[in-house]
Amino acid sequence: MNESPESYLLTPGPLTTSLATKSAMLRDWGSWDSDFNELTARVCRRLLAVAHAEDTHVCVPLQGSGTYAVEAALATLLPRDGKALVLMNGAYGQRMARILRYLGRDFVPLDMGDYLPPPPERVAAMLVADPDLAHVAVVHCETSSGILNPLEAIAEVTRQQGRRLFVDAMSSFGALPVDTRELPFDGLVSSANKCFEGVPGFGFALLRRGALEQCVGNAHSLSLDLYDQWLYLERTGQWRFTPPTHVVAAFASALDQHQAEGGVAGRLARYVHNKEILVSGMRAMGFHTLLADCWLSPIIVTFHAPGHPNFDFETFYRLIKQRGFIIYPGKLTQVDSFRIGCIGQLFEAQMRGVLTAVRATLDAMGIPDGSPRPEDLDKPTF
Amino acid sequence: MNESPESYLLTPGPLTTSLATKSAMLRDWGSWDSDFNELTARVCRRLLAVAHAEDTHVCVPLQGSGTYAVEAALATLLPRDGKALVLMNGAYGQRMARILRYLGRDFVPLDMGDYLPPPPERVAAMLVADPDLAHVAVVHCETSSGILNPLEAIAEVTRQQGRRLFVDAMSSFGALPVDTRELPFDGLVSSANKCFEGVPGFGFALLRRGALEQCVGNAHSLSLDLYDQWLYLERTGQWRFTPPTHVVAAFASALDQHQAEGGVAGRLARYVHNKEILVSGMRAMGFHTLLADCWLSPIIVTFHAPGHPNFDFETFYRLIKQRGFIIYPGKLTQVDSFRIGCIGQLFEAQMRGVLTAVRATLDAMGIPDGSPRPEDLDKPTF
Repeated sequence: MNESPESYLLTPGPLTTSLATKSAMLRDWGSWDSDFNELTARVCRRLLAVAHAEDTHVCVPLQGSGTYAVEAALATLLPRDGKALVLMNGAYGQRMARILRYLGRDFVPLDMGDYLPPPPERVAAMLVADPDLAHVAVVHCETSSGILNPLEAIAEVTRQQGRRLFVDAMSSFGALPVDTRELPFDGLVSSANKCFEGVPGFGFALLRRGALEQCVGNAHSLSLDLYDQWLYLERTGQWRFTPPTHVVAAFASALDQHQAEGGVAGRLARYVHNKEILVSGMRAMGFHTLLADCWLSPIIVTFHAPGHPNFDFETFYRLIKQRGFIIYPGKLTQVDSFRIGCIGQLFEAQMRGVLTAVRATLDAMGIPDGSPRPEDLDKPTF
Repeated sequence: MNESPESYLLTPGPLTTSLATKSAMLRDWGSWDSDFNELTARVCRRLLAVAHAEDTHVCVPLQGSGTYAVEAALATLLPRDGKALVLMNGAYGQRMARILRYLGRDFVPLDMGDYLPPPPERVAAMLVADPDLAHVAVVHCETSSGILNPLEAIAEVTRQQGRRLFVDAMSSFGALPVDTRELPFDGLVSSANKCFEGVPGFGFALLRRGALEQCVGNAHSLSLDLYDQWLYLERTGQWRFTPPTHVVAAFASALDQHQAEGGVAGRLARYVHNKEILVSGMRAMGFHTLLADCWLSPIIVTFHAPGHPNFDFETFYRLIKQRGFIIYPGKLTQVDSFRIGCIGQLFEAQMRGVLTAVRATLDAMGIPDGSPRPEDLDKPTF
């Protein structure tokens, strides 16, 4: 048991990446040079292919964290006098609303609280009631709870009502299938350090070309203007401002590995397997998931904290970390919880390893099992 | 002579970094974990110390390219109804103006064209004439031409007039001394991949604490709100949104190496030596610098393109790259030029190496020497 060695990250990203991905950063690239431009072009082509969007969309990478890409895409796609319906059931839906308040753009929230899914029929009714709601913004996998929102059904009602869809697919794209031919969207945003298993440093938006072409002058920020970034990239092959060259090179390697694993299907199969090992192993120790099986994502799973009086998250976290695994705190307002991720370079051995670490940690803390407080379970689950 | 091996980058950044810096990226960090928080805190403390600003300023790191940090600092520091004097003599001064136009903030430009220094007495006169000009924004080293602007004198007239100074020290901080006790500023911005020789992926702002405390609600953007980033960092030790963990780890290593080289003084000495080898060697081949010696920076130097009819920048660039060096195109509107950088992990051997590559390239192109067109030299130089 030692403190400083590298731990496996069972978190929603940054996550554990392969040595091949990290080793791709052992080279310096000229950001203006044609070699690097080809790297960028290859990354963008591949991301479009993953969503079957080559013929309809463009890929615009953006320096910074995933939230920057969400802000940039909302600011670029939404007209200044537009109005959006924002679906929320956790921190990332709330964040879209916070962004729109900064931008001074009009929106209507549908706030389901901590972890209830937004009902598609309610979305439909709100769109019917307010024809000004030109855009619907939804988070695919809301990692606050780990819930996988009913994206297909929401996309369908949005399409039926003739509105435009914006998807925050930050923690899902690359592992959960999104095919724009069947699930039409104007914008979808994700980042390098999630299911493609790159390192953090940039995000990207897949934007419907026909929509983007109408977006000149929408953005509030030079840095976050995806229209301007796109124009410059089209004209020069370069990012407008210094790109995180090493991170992009790592991502290109990560994309190759993604493809070698069987693309989205192969990655999803591994993550689902990770989740099943995790959930069944945790349940065998008396832990309860926040959500019913049908809402669990293969991205990250929220567990009720043990109800035992000896339980304290800081200690639990520290002792599990000493055993080589970093888990994630909860993000719910009403229920005491913690989260364990299934994404990144994690395989059966690591998932069994974290279960062993949890068991040993419970023993060390004098906690017989993971049963939550009865009052937490009284809350309706889904 | 081969195409694909890594080249030395004689560019204003991203630049050639040490293997130690890049190797620090071979580890994955949990962005929420205390180990990473300590890394962030160490980086911020060190950056403040470089400017002797520990007692007066705070350091706020920001994901993204350096331009993001400039936009974020301007948006956060300038009140929405404020008015700034923006000094321009190249692309980076122009970019500050472009940012302010996006932000809808009032400003007055002092535009000196491609490469003339802003005269401090003119700055003083403009401040006297317009008491509403509460802030003065200046680029320290304008890499468009490589000119080192008279920062000390501009800071002095700004102080005398009781106005506030904002410095874009992107390409100078870490190599050129800035001591806030003698050169008081409200904000100074730079990025990881310049004179500290990190890899690109984040920027940072040194902000006077007393000024920043007044800046709630100024920013136009959630992602770029340095006030909000600062508050969160103070409260949690964490970045608000996913930081580029590997890039931050590389930067921490780069800072150690900066200190081991003798800090700012040691780094400046090496860069000055690089510049002297470069300039004297290029002049010996008949090349002319755009600027007189007193305005040359040890960061990047602009040379007039050879006037010979065989000269073509694309070919020149490609042949030099084949010899292992990446140089930089010019960015002037009126004069045919190119640039060669002196920063990054470049030592005497590399500077002599690029001179040899230039000579061999001239020979290959059938160009006897680097003499510019006479009409370029007719333009006044400084």
